[in-house]
Amino acid sequence: MVSRVVFGRGSFNQLGDIIEPKRVNTTAPFIFLVDDVFKGNPLITSRLPLAYNDQLVFVSTKEEPKTSQVDEMVEQIILNHKDRPSGIIGIGGGTIMDLAKAVAIMLTNEGEAKDYQGWDIVKNAAIYHVGVPTISGTGAEVSRTTILTGPQRKLGINSDFTPFDQVILDPELTVGVPKEQWFYTGMDCFVHCIESLKGTYLNAFSQSYGEKALELCQEIFLEDTLSDEDSQDQLMMASWHGGMSIAYSQVGVAHAMSYGLGYLLGIKHGIGNCIVFEHLEEYYPEGVAMYKAMRKKHNIFIPQGICSNLGDDEFDIMIDVALSLEPLWENAIGKNWKQIITRDKLKALYQKM
Amino acid sequence: MVSRVVFGRGSFNQLGDIIEPKRVNTTAPFIFLVDDVFKGNPLITSRLPLAYNDQLVFVSTKEEPKTSQVDEMVEQIILNHKDRPSGIIGIGGGTIMDLAKAVAIMLTNEGEAKDYQGWDIVKNAAIYHVGVPTISGTGAEVSRTTILTGPQRKLGINSDFTPFDQVILDPELTVGVPKEQWFYTGMDCFVHCIESLKGTYLNAFSQSYGEKALELCQEIFLEDTLSDEDSQDQLMMASWHGGMSIAYSQVGVAHAMSYGLGYLLGIKHGIGNCIVFEHLEEYYPEGVAMYKAMRKKHNIFIPQGICSNLGDDEFDIMIDVALSLEPLWENAIGKNWKQIITRDKLKALYQKM
Repeated sequence: MVSRVVFGRGSFNQLGDIIEPKRVNTTAPFIFLVDDVFKGNPLITSRLPLAYNDQLVFVSTKEEPKTSQVDEMVEQIILNHKDRPSGIIGIGGGTIMDLAKAVAIMLTNEGEAKDYQGWDIVKNAAIYHVGVPTISGTGAEVSRTTILTGPQRKLGINSDFTPFDQVILDPELTVGVPKEQWFYTGMDCFVHCIESLKGTYLNAFSQSYGEKALELCQEIFLEDTLSDEDSQDQLMMASWHGGMSIAYSQVGVAHAMSYGLGYLLGIKHGIGNCIVFEHLEEYYPEGVAMYKAMRKKHNIFIPQGICSNLGDDEFDIMIDVALSLEPLWENAIGKNWKQIITRDKLKALYQKM
Repeated sequence: MVSRVVFGRGSFNQLGDIIEPKRVNTTAPFIFLVDDVFKGNPLITSRLPLAYNDQLVFVSTKEEPKTSQVDEMVEQIILNHKDRPSGIIGIGGGTIMDLAKAVAIMLTNEGEAKDYQGWDIVKNAAIYHVGVPTISGTGAEVSRTTILTGPQRKLGINSDFTPFDQVILDPELTVGVPKEQWFYTGMDCFVHCIESLKGTYLNAFSQSYGEKALELCQEIFLEDTLSDEDSQDQLMMASWHGGMSIAYSQVGVAHAMSYGLGYLLGIKHGIGNCIVFEHLEEYYPEGVAMYKAMRKKHNIFIPQGICSNLGDDEFDIMIDVALSLEPLWENAIGKNWKQIITRDKLKALYQKM
């Protein structure tokens, strides 16, 4: 779990005070990985506590994070600095959170990022890493995974060394998120809750977190009672609790199939979940009805027909990726999931999307 | 925050596997501090993963933990073992949780425990320490404090080094808790929620945790819908969430006054909170009404007249202890609390108890 967390509007101003005691020496830099939507935006750039050899790296988040991208970033850091960094500070949405966690791990572990996709393969503790989320929903700020697209699969580096050492939750930073992005990412949280609460892995720990996150999502996306500020605050907490809920449980059908779309077509995770969830009445009837009410209320566009021109080979690739995520299916369906979830069933579902 | 947590019925069986990688060497023991109610109880004793020079210490929890007790335990550990311990494992209720945290801190920090009562005085990281709660409610398993009675005051050692490195939440271990103890300790959680949610320090982080814990308490103590097992599971989670709620907020009137009772009369914390809370309608009207409904439903005895034979000097001692807890009063009443909370007002309240 995350060791330390600060919450509050304006708490981003504490970043300098928080990281300075962690500076190993003046030649061991902090590396700031910042979503490039903030390039030239003083909300972030004027407040970065850069000192000595610290480096600011703007990162495009148009695409989902890749293992090869992690390897390149690690190589650049090693080439550019004589000393191992004092820490990695990720500032952005889920993509930046996952890149920051993966880079921190790969600076102390040999080989390539793809070698660590899976569960508990990481050997050495990561370097100090801090997460500052600027979009709410993915739960990447609190999770023990970092989901990466590798040459063979889309799968997380799940380990006890993955979670951030420090998270700063400042809801003010989410103020400029475009409406569609706000919805897609928020629905990632909503889907986490449904998949956790309806899963066979459910326990009282996951349930209490999932129920609270779901309640917050309903308030934010279905009711009109919250001020803008309260809505930002609460969505940041929904993301946190939703992430905690799946930390000790699992996600399910939507995530498994969304990973297939992400791997083959590069569909980003939030919107991918929405595209899939539209068609999952059979598995999550109440959740899908609630999701559709939210989508209608906010008049959000969901792409359709994205699989209409795909060939059998391409469907097979997506189905292979989805089926490889066995814990997700076992959580969603139960131990006998292989008898229920056939390749034909998944193909028919993908064909609707 | 707690770095690692395991939840589940039977998860206590994982203790050996969890701590063994943390063993520094064969002469650096794990010290097991175990509530002496478990002496001869195989539920715990037959399952302790003792090896090499590990030491089992049964600790009486009849009294609240003291700074002098911590100092004695640390001295005994140093005298009995050549090497600094690999870790401290606390197994019991809030008293044991607090002792385990304090001993782990004082093994790496010079001087006496009383020197560290306050906020962020601890200089050096504690040794590895694990909490296994066997009663639910105090939130001591998740908090960044350890409340100790010292020569001058009853006050916590609040620091970033206080929280456990690992917590094992196994609701099965709470099975033998006597009914009155179950209620008093559960009410500690309930009072945390009320004090946090009605406090001026409230923020969205504390609110979401406090609301969930309060909802669980209502289900456990007011409704008849839960099985015994579900009730144990949920109370363990209520304790956790209640603790998280005050971690980023504060407690209030009941805790401040209960510390006075604890310091002067040695009243244990859970029952002390109940004794005080009976009389706090002015500050928490809805909370007190709900508490009284719970107390009646479970037919719980609350001592009365415990202050009836006290002299003015003794009231002054309790009032001094209570008023010294300034953050609690500021949270409960607001910045102008000193104009509202007079010594006479507190005396009149104590006289009712």
